[in-house]
Amino acid sequence: MERSEIEAIVHEVLRRTMNRQDTVVQGTMPLALAVKLIEKIEAKAAEWNMRVVTAVSDASGNPVAVHCMDGAYIGSFDVALNKTYTSIAFQMSTEKLGTLSRPGESLYGIQFTNGGRIVIFGGGELLLRNGTIVGALGVSGGTARQDTELAVYGKEIFERMEQEVQQCL
Amino acid sequence: MERSEIEAIVHEVLRRTMNRQDTVVQGTMPLALAVKLIEKIEAKAAEWNMRVVTAVSDASGNPVAVHCMDGAYIGSFDVALNKTYTSIAFQMSTEKLGTLSRPGESLYGIQFTNGGRIVIFGGGELLLRNGTIVGALGVSGGTARQDTELAVYGKEIFERMEQEVQQCL
Amino acid sequence: MERSEIEAIVHEVLRRTMNRQDTVVQGTMPLALAVKLIEKIEAKAAEWNMRVVTAVSDASGNPVAVHCMDGAYIGSFDVALNKTYTSIAFQMSTEKLGTLSRPGESLYGIQFTNGGRIVIFGGGELLLRNGTIVGALGVSGGTARQDTELAVYGKEIFERMEQEVQQCL
Amino acid sequence: MERSEIEAIVHEVLRRTMNRQDTVVQGTMPLALAVKLIEKIEAKAAEWNMRVVTAVSDASGNPVAVHCMDGAYIGSFDVALNKTYTSIAFQMSTEKLGTLSRPGESLYGIQFTNGGRIVIFGGGELLLRNGTIVGALGVSGGTARQDTELAVYGKEIFERMEQEVQQCL
Repeated sequence: MERSEIEAIVHEVLRRTMNRQDTVVQGTMPLALAVKLIEKIEAKAAEWNMRVVTAVSDASGNPVAVHCMDGAYIGSFDVALNKTYTSIAFQMSTEKLGTLSRPGESLYGIQFTNGGRIVIFGGGELLLRNGTIVGALGVSGGTARQDTELAVYGKEIFERMEQEVQQCL
Repeated sequence: MERSEIEAIVHEVLRRTMNRQDTVVQGTMPLALAVKLIEKIEAKAAEWNMRVVTAVSDASGNPVAVHCMDGAYIGSFDVALNKTYTSIAFQMSTEKLGTLSRPGESLYGIQFTNGGRIVIFGGGELLLRNGTIVGALGVSGGTARQDTELAVYGKEIFERMEQEVQQCL
Repeated sequence: MERSEIEAIVHEVLRRTMNRQDTVVQGTMPLALAVKLIEKIEAKAAEWNMRVVTAVSDASGNPVAVHCMDGAYIGSFDVALNKTYTSIAFQMSTEKLGTLSRPGESLYGIQFTNGGRIVIFGGGELLLRNGTIVGALGVSGGTARQDTELAVYGKEIFERMEQEVQQCL
Repeated sequence: MERSEIEAIVHEVLRRTMNRQDTVVQGTMPLALAVKLIEKIEAKAAEWNMRVVTAVSDASGNPVAVHCMDGAYIGSFDVALNKTYTSIAFQMSTEKLGTLSRPGESLYGIQFTNGGRIVIFGGGELLLRNGTIVGALGVSGGTARQDTELAVYGKEIFERMEQEVQQCL
């Protein structure tokens, strides 16, 4: 990230922390940070010749931003959004949940609960700040393997972005 | 249970039995009893270092009480509630339904019916009074095995609580 | 509240604040506090000869606890839960939203959005801590006027409970 | 818009027009343009001291991008998204549909159809290119009047952005 972008995010975090007029508990995932993350994922997706929908939610599972790359599947909007929901709902990546929900495994059947919002293939990852869950990322558009790789990339990039932001605080 | 708690539940059961003004068919799972059961399950969950959502429904599958322990999965609310529904809907534990709904088994496919409310892994148990179904219990928050053990514990504790109440009537 | 109850809640708040092993951002509405609030509302409902469903959610709209008093309407479970969702979703009481959503008013039509989860009559109130939204309360079972009065009572009692907890911190 | 931004959008439009390998009918609302529009609306919202959710869809009603400003209502995500759907679904602004759907008017009742996705107050506007519908905009977060003014502003800004892009082609 460029210095000016980091400063904008730090400024936003401080503004929200200091602003005593706020009557609402603010989330831990500012829009500026979510969009920055999405853009980095889209740049990587373009490199890999993928067209994806990318969604970022806060720690409670409420969405913060969703982008659909040109030519992405129409159906990927719901999938990406539900990958963030699933990751937050059960505090693990959708890939891990996919393993645990295979026939014979301990969570087989979870895919049929929660009103059709559970996704059990890769592409949903938790976003951590100093080891604490602050949101989730959902990527949809390629194969499960591609989506997983792209989401893991996004998760790692997020942690690096967080460290840069921390250093400026 | 303490004597005063038993007396409160007996009092409530008698009040409801005697009250001829009631125009609604009363359920067989008083709130006081459901909450008492939930608290006992939560105490055991804390011992086992689990954070669970616990739901109790009456014999018709309608919910009576749901508690989410601090730090429980957000997604567990729906799962616990649906475990009570599933247990009542097919009059068996969700673990048993899980076995019967495997590919090749007699109930394979049940997990795709009933609008995404069917749960086919352990943690949902029927609650019995003198062999009659009076409600169901749903526990969600750990592995399927942990949820099952905790729900079976709850089912047994409920039967002991019932016996204590009966003796006071 | 009794001293021991307040101490338990304070203890829980401190435990969650201090516990660095927690990997999840904890909500601001501990279960112990939600259940205590529900019990106070139920005591008042019994005085007023009402049988209600009472739901408490956290600041993100996720449910913390729901109790159905014996003889409450089966349909009130969804209504009470959706009153908490609605209050959080638009940061106002459902009574106020009811006024703003009348034909000719500025939000007429809001009742038809959000997948049928919006409630536009009284009984949903925000729960505040030092002026900050920390959750919502939904009461359903009587007339809209009765539900509103009971929910406003609950909102006020919550603020008094919060002050008692604060003094112990 | 800055020259480099316009060039990026032109480049994207040309790339998609020329690319004969595309097997999917491409939409007419590139992500880069949608995000640029959302950012301009958010800048104006900040000036007006509003915190809004802004959604942009393509001409078929499928979403392209959604942003939630920090502190926006949780409930506004669905409302903003449904405002784009509604505008496309009936080819008019949600404000106009609001007028036509009043009791006694020609479209009264439309608010009860389409699975709870119809919004009948202002904040949803069609996005036009040379008089042709190429997408829709949904804004939610303020009063219906504020949302309407902000969406109309966005609609006009979009048309100016389109003209700048056209001139470069």
